Amino acid sequence: MEEPTTAEVGERLAAWAGRFNARFEALLVPSEPVPPIMVEAVRYAAASGGKRVRPYIVTRTCELCGGTEDDALPAAAALECVHAFSLVHDDLPAMDNDDFRRGRPTCHKAYGEAVAILAGDALVTLAFELLATRMKDPQKIVRAVTELARGAGWAGMIGGQTEDILGEKCAPDLERVRQIHRGKTARLFEAAGRLGAISAGADEAQTSAAAEFGHYLGLAFQIADDILDVTGSAQELGKAVAKDAQAGKQTYPAAVGLEESRRIARTFVDKAIGALRIFGPAADDLRALVRFVIDRKK
Amino acid sequence: MEEPTTAEVGERLAAWAGRFNARFEALLVPSEPVPPIMVEAVRYAAASGGKRVRPYIVTRTCELCGGTEDDALPAAAALECVHAFSLVHDDLPAMDNDDFRRGRPTCHKAYGEAVAILAGDALVTLAFELLATRMKDPQKIVRAVTELARGAGWAGMIGGQTEDILGEKCAPDLERVRQIHRGKTARLFEAAGRLGAISAGADEAQTSAAAEFGHYLGLAFQIADDILDVTGSAQELGKAVAKDAQAGKQTYPAAVGLEESRRIARTFVDKAIGALRIFGPAADDLRALVRFVIDRKK
Repeated sequence: MEEPTTAEVGERLAAWAGRFNARFEALLVPSEPVPPIMVEAVRYAAASGGKRVRPYIVTRTCELCGGTEDDALPAAAALECVHAFSLVHDDLPAMDNDDFRRGRPTCHKAYGEAVAILAGDALVTLAFELLATRMKDPQKIVRAVTELARGAGWAGMIGGQTEDILGEKCAPDLERVRQIHRGKTARLFEAAGRLGAISAGADEAQTSAAAEFGHYLGLAFQIADDILDVTGSAQELGKAVAKDAQAGKQTYPAAVGLEESRRIARTFVDKAIGALRIFGPAADDLRALVRFVIDRKK
Repeated sequence: MEEPTTAEVGERLAAWAGRFNARFEALLVPSEPVPPIMVEAVRYAAASGGKRVRPYIVTRTCELCGGTEDDALPAAAALECVHAFSLVHDDLPAMDNDDFRRGRPTCHKAYGEAVAILAGDALVTLAFELLATRMKDPQKIVRAVTELARGAGWAGMIGGQTEDILGEKCAPDLERVRQIHRGKTARLFEAAGRLGAISAGADEAQTSAAAEFGHYLGLAFQIADDILDVTGSAQELGKAVAKDAQAGKQTYPAAVGLEESRRIARTFVDKAIGALRIFGPAADDLRALVRFVIDRKK
């Protein structure tokens, strides 16, 4: 099997996302009565427009470890709920204050701040409900809940977002940028790899490799995001550009310039691809995914 | 054993809360690095001042079902994290906009809105981490995660908070008040009873009784809260009074007046006490707790 081109992997991811979206939306239907506006806001925030990179990693690492797409679905959906939750809260006026996301008004612009705060809260609790009720093996559920809670929590994504907010308007500092990226982005990508392995019942070596792949892909993804904020167009991105500089954010371009940022991104790409060695040629699409993530225009 | 007086149960709860607080705070120590301000904000929001009624219910229903205080601790702590999370987000300017809670500045007044939003988020993820890592039996963990996620989620507490916000400035409506109280308060009290039973490995009859007790205690608790907002003093409550009327909240006093509110509260008290029949005289302190919750001044 030859490694697919960046364009091919982009198409493959989009096709997969279409299939995932249908199954994901079916999981966003409450089994008990929920205020209709809350259902709407949750589905608005979660149900469309994203690249679905995180659930794709869950699914593909699960398959590489011997599991099926069905095995991966609960964890893939749960992780996407957590991602959606983080975007809704991140976009709030008291946080990054963004009016647009994926080319549409952000959740609080569409439903008001109170409902948006609560929709984010609903998404994170729904994530754990999905793990506990849709995964089958109690041992796997315990490991998955632990991983998702830690990946999202105060030592993970939420901790990284805290550093991100605190770092605003401070002098750019490479060590700080590294810490922010590890927390706010790489930790949840690492969880994606590990959740895929857990869903498949993988051994220790496969689990570590999947987690390491996710970690470095996450670092590459976030540095690419930083670069796009400097070089991208608002039309392509579906959100405002140069927001980072305006907000005085800690970013790689601010700390080390564009060229050095690109060089560091390549080292993360190499490490992410290196982590896939254990999976052999079956992981070629993930190797291409790494390049896609770096080369993307949005 | 004679049923303790209201004063005695108040003292007993306070003494128990002191012991619980020490064990709870010990669980609010991160195992991996966390931004120091996040640790502070989480501990500020969670670690002191509350009555600890919910974890007390978890603990006592666990004991009544044959478990120990140790068996109950992870679920008791997790539930209190969820409660603290809900208060932090509830107090935000876009929600109830409260400056004081338990006689101190609210979390966003002390740490700023961004950190408060994230501290709430950290508390809810920590709740699930505590269940998954501190409870022992995987079967129990799965049931506990399911119960906590549903109790807190869009069909539970978060759904009730949504109805609460949406109901502001609308004409008082008894059916709406009942729905709000069921969601925003009674559902988590019900979860407290059920989590205690799950922690003990209780049978179906005990579990249902514990959940029913929690449900009606929660309804009684919230109606007492509504009444206190009308009749209480800010000094005793440690927060502003008459806030509900000012905000145009859906409350029992607004919908049916004070006297009828008190009468309905007594029916909830009777039902909560009735649900305890299965546990015999061993549950006398919980019977007294129901009266304490109704008679309290804060």
